[in-house]
Amino acid sequence: MSRTQENTRILLARRPHGAPKPDDFRVVTESRPEPGEGEVLVETLYLSIDPYMRGRMNDVKSYVPPYEIGGLMGGGAVGRIVKSCSPDIHEDTIVEGMLGWQQFAVAKPRHLRIVDPRIAPISTALGILGMPGLTAYFGLLELCKPQPGETVVVSAASGAVGSVVGQLAKLKGCRTIGFVGSEEKAAYVKDELGYDATLNYRVIADLQKEMSELCPDGVDVYFDNVGGPITDAVLDNLSQHARVALCGQISQYNNTRPEMGPRNLWKLIVTRSRVEGFLVTDFGQRYAEGISALAGWLADGTLRYREDIVQGIESAPAAFIRMLEGENFGKLLVRVDTPE
Amino acid sequence: MSRTQENTRILLARRPHGAPKPDDFRVVTESRPEPGEGEVLVETLYLSIDPYMRGRMNDVKSYVPPYEIGGLMGGGAVGRIVKSCSPDIHEDTIVEGMLGWQQFAVAKPRHLRIVDPRIAPISTALGILGMPGLTAYFGLLELCKPQPGETVVVSAASGAVGSVVGQLAKLKGCRTIGFVGSEEKAAYVKDELGYDATLNYRVIADLQKEMSELCPDGVDVYFDNVGGPITDAVLDNLSQHARVALCGQISQYNNTRPEMGPRNLWKLIVTRSRVEGFLVTDFGQRYAEGISALAGWLADGTLRYREDIVQGIESAPAAFIRMLEGENFGKLLVRVDTPE
Repeated sequence: MSRTQENTRILLARRPHGAPKPDDFRVVTESRPEPGEGEVLVETLYLSIDPYMRGRMNDVKSYVPPYEIGGLMGGGAVGRIVKSCSPDIHEDTIVEGMLGWQQFAVAKPRHLRIVDPRIAPISTALGILGMPGLTAYFGLLELCKPQPGETVVVSAASGAVGSVVGQLAKLKGCRTIGFVGSEEKAAYVKDELGYDATLNYRVIADLQKEMSELCPDGVDVYFDNVGGPITDAVLDNLSQHARVALCGQISQYNNTRPEMGPRNLWKLIVTRSRVEGFLVTDFGQRYAEGISALAGWLADGTLRYREDIVQGIESAPAAFIRMLEGENFGKLLVRVDTPE
Repeated sequence: MSRTQENTRILLARRPHGAPKPDDFRVVTESRPEPGEGEVLVETLYLSIDPYMRGRMNDVKSYVPPYEIGGLMGGGAVGRIVKSCSPDIHEDTIVEGMLGWQQFAVAKPRHLRIVDPRIAPISTALGILGMPGLTAYFGLLELCKPQPGETVVVSAASGAVGSVVGQLAKLKGCRTIGFVGSEEKAAYVKDELGYDATLNYRVIADLQKEMSELCPDGVDVYFDNVGGPITDAVLDNLSQHARVALCGQISQYNNTRPEMGPRNLWKLIVTRSRVEGFLVTDFGQRYAEGISALAGWLADGTLRYREDIVQGIESAPAAFIRMLEGENFGKLLVRVDTPE
């Protein structure tokens, strides 16, 4: 098998117990697949590495079935059509879709979104102009409906989703406060993303107290990507009629048993507040609207983004493990080079 | 001071530490107050004893200020106008208002609701045709919007609020499951209120498992008056797009420090569910609508209710303590007799 006929793929070797380890993944080289009638062959250019993937590695009932042991690690990717057996899409088109952690994928055109490289770098189709950007857009604007002058708090403020949430909240005239995990990230979200204040959860001893000092009138909107003690501190400081959008709980994903925390649902009663979980796919019919709005703000310089790109498909597992520890800085991507 | 000039009142002697004790209250006899111009004197007939009062005994910031030490225990009551210095309301009128734990109260007519004794027993103005009924009506119908065929779970199913929630859910064509604290209550909510199934939380060892067996397709609506492990078990079994109305968390009110429980917000994400706290006063502009609907269903026999009435204003503290232990059975009231 010549190298040009190869297809490197990353499989789930076993279900992680707690934090994923390199041995939980297996890198295999198989022969490149052939598209059938009506299908296309896509060469991966960028893989998206996202927190939700940790949940799918567990064998639990959820909104989608878990990854299978021995099966491909699933996920979004951007690639180039290298062979088309479909009249609907021609070779060299750039597309985005759920292609998984592999160099080449066979797909049906209806499962792919065409990416226009003239609008923005194609990697943004996995970030600010893709799933994370849409998650921020619909989660903040539809679930939380932020009003001018309100205080909006975001956990994982420099992340792929949080970075967009903070900028959209600012655009809506809100005061924005972001939780971050390093001083470097704190400087970035303040200087580049326009956050009004930051809280470094790794160094602050009393998050609840710090929150109450920063938000004497309470938190009107909380966009949560993290959960755990950060979220406890915010729930302790809700204003009346606050809205909380639950996007992720990354602090909990590696737990092997439920972490315990203070029961605080009664705080939602005395503040008449709402907590709502959501998935971006709930807004699937409105993606074009979201992408169009985000692309407009990106083009006129209103929105900024940052990418954390690692090289080579074999790096995907280590990058994923690193992200779950909060060590990425910006939207995490794997640049996949195919030897020619 | 002749007995007819006396006014027995119950004051907060000190803030309870944990479960309230009799010594946390003080019974005093003062002279009967005199209404001023535009005011009325109300003789209390029934006092309402409600769980929310426990929160107001603590010195914490909430939606209303706490009761003051040495001040009157606040609360709703039904009484008769015995002296009117207002052209707006005549003597012998039956009224409901926040009159507090005392035999006689001076009030302004605009703070009173006139109760028509021909519609239902006047005590219902503190129960099914009052705050608890309205709480059930707006909390279930507005926050949860139950649909025919959905599964609705209610904690404290035989209580003043829960008993109405279950019946309204049944009226909407739902399957209803109620948590109760005794077999006697279980029989009542099934036989009298039409609940489809009950769970006695005092005897079931594994609430989560029992819930999952009772609700293989998940819980669509949860109306929570209790919190704690009962609520954990329900949140473990939510269906997709479930709605949770938080009305009370009585299991937590006597805690002296936050009780710990499993962090389960991530379950709201995978089920895209909503949890919302509310106060009946949020629907203050719509009380007439709610009372009218509830009175109609009461008149035609659709709705039933049960009262737990204790005798004498001095019994109020003991009744309140008993209620916080779940020992009342039906809407808890104190019948206040005034010696003539």
